[in-house]
Amino acid sequence: MSVEPEMSNEERRAAKKATRQRTTIRQSAIRGVDDRAVLEQILDVALIGHVSLIEEGMPVTIPTAIVRIDDHVYLHGSRTSRLYRHLAGGNPVCISFCLLDGLVKARSAFHCSMNYRSVVIFGCGTPVGGDEKAEILFQLTERLFSLDRRHYREHLAKELKATELVRIPLDEVSVKVRTGGPNDDDEDMNLPLWAGEYPLEQIQLEPIASADLLTGIAAPKLGG
Amino acid sequence: MSVEPEMSNEERRAAKKATRQRTTIRQSAIRGVDDRAVLEQILDVALIGHVSLIEEGMPVTIPTAIVRIDDHVYLHGSRTSRLYRHLAGGNPVCISFCLLDGLVKARSAFHCSMNYRSVVIFGCGTPVGGDEKAEILFQLTERLFSLDRRHYREHLAKELKATELVRIPLDEVSVKVRTGGPNDDDEDMNLPLWAGEYPLEQIQLEPIASADLLTGIAAPKLGG
Repeated sequence: MSVEPEMSNEERRAAKKATRQRTTIRQSAIRGVDDRAVLEQILDVALIGHVSLIEEGMPVTIPTAIVRIDDHVYLHGSRTSRLYRHLAGGNPVCISFCLLDGLVKARSAFHCSMNYRSVVIFGCGTPVGGDEKAEILFQLTERLFSLDRRHYREHLAKELKATELVRIPLDEVSVKVRTGGPNDDDEDMNLPLWAGEYPLEQIQLEPIASADLLTGIAAPKLGG
Repeated sequence: MSVEPEMSNEERRAAKKATRQRTTIRQSAIRGVDDRAVLEQILDVALIGHVSLIEEGMPVTIPTAIVRIDDHVYLHGSRTSRLYRHLAGGNPVCISFCLLDGLVKARSAFHCSMNYRSVVIFGCGTPVGGDEKAEILFQLTERLFSLDRRHYREHLAKELKATELVRIPLDEVSVKVRTGGPNDDDEDMNLPLWAGEYPLEQIQLEPIASADLLTGIAAPKLGG
């Protein structure tokens, strides 16, 4: 039932042999994926990442909008916030993304699981400034909304000044994916219990226009 | 565009006056919610939380299935995994949940935002054992799948032994919710640009039976 699920004894033995590295989560190394396209797709769909840092000796996690552009993820927010002071200072962070794709029901509670796609990134932030900052802030908005920059007015100088933009390279990354049905024990196969997957999907509902919108402006289709 | 979004000057002044506490994220205190029902609903829908810990001086985050029962959240997994060794050892963790409810498109990129519901919990784990462990593991499965225990066989002793179950109290918790449309600048209201919300929703698709399922067993309806 866990995203860090059970393993067979054989898988456990194989995993124990593997060198333990920070980006290899030993218990679920079997679910590890080394595929750049899968990594990019998860980041491009997730939109929200959970950024963790150490503050006064304690772990602190903050969910925030995150966008991948080429070989980096970009985070942006108020320059005066504690998260962005921390990020701009180049302190180490860990960023976690998880897309829940389905509930996997087994005949035993023990073998219930979830189908998911997850990415964990370790790294330090570097502030982005100058002309590149304005350009990337537009690209970032374009990617979050799948709407190009014609749909927004230009940035104001005060907006750029108030916003911190930080990038983190995709150098130290762990990708894990689980798909398919449950892995019940052989002894349980004849139990009169249903087993299978309940897939989940995120859908977009009809857009809701602002009450103060000028008349005659249609909602642009995302991705168009 | 961020989950930690922009504030007006007035809101910023008010927030600056507030006592800074770990569970009050200053930049978005305006979005803070002090409502137990909202907290419970977010945890009960999210299913996946991002657990952060400190390992060798670095922040490490792991997404995992998490269930609320009464005044605690419960995490379970392999007793030998590093996450569960850490949790069972009573070390401090931070757990972050975020449900993305919509993309909020403003006339300016700066005022684009997201509608979301988030919970951040700080605390230390306590292992759960004995008869309570078996009972709570069943409750946990029932809640993750919204299917009662008649749909599973009994736990085996070796399964209970291999599984660590840890609870963390809902004592130190931050809840934030954003709803509604964008907050554009007054000067931008007459721009010929669409503004509003693109709501998002997670839906359940048709169940997929295991290929090895006995004939004549229908998929139970979740929540039934």
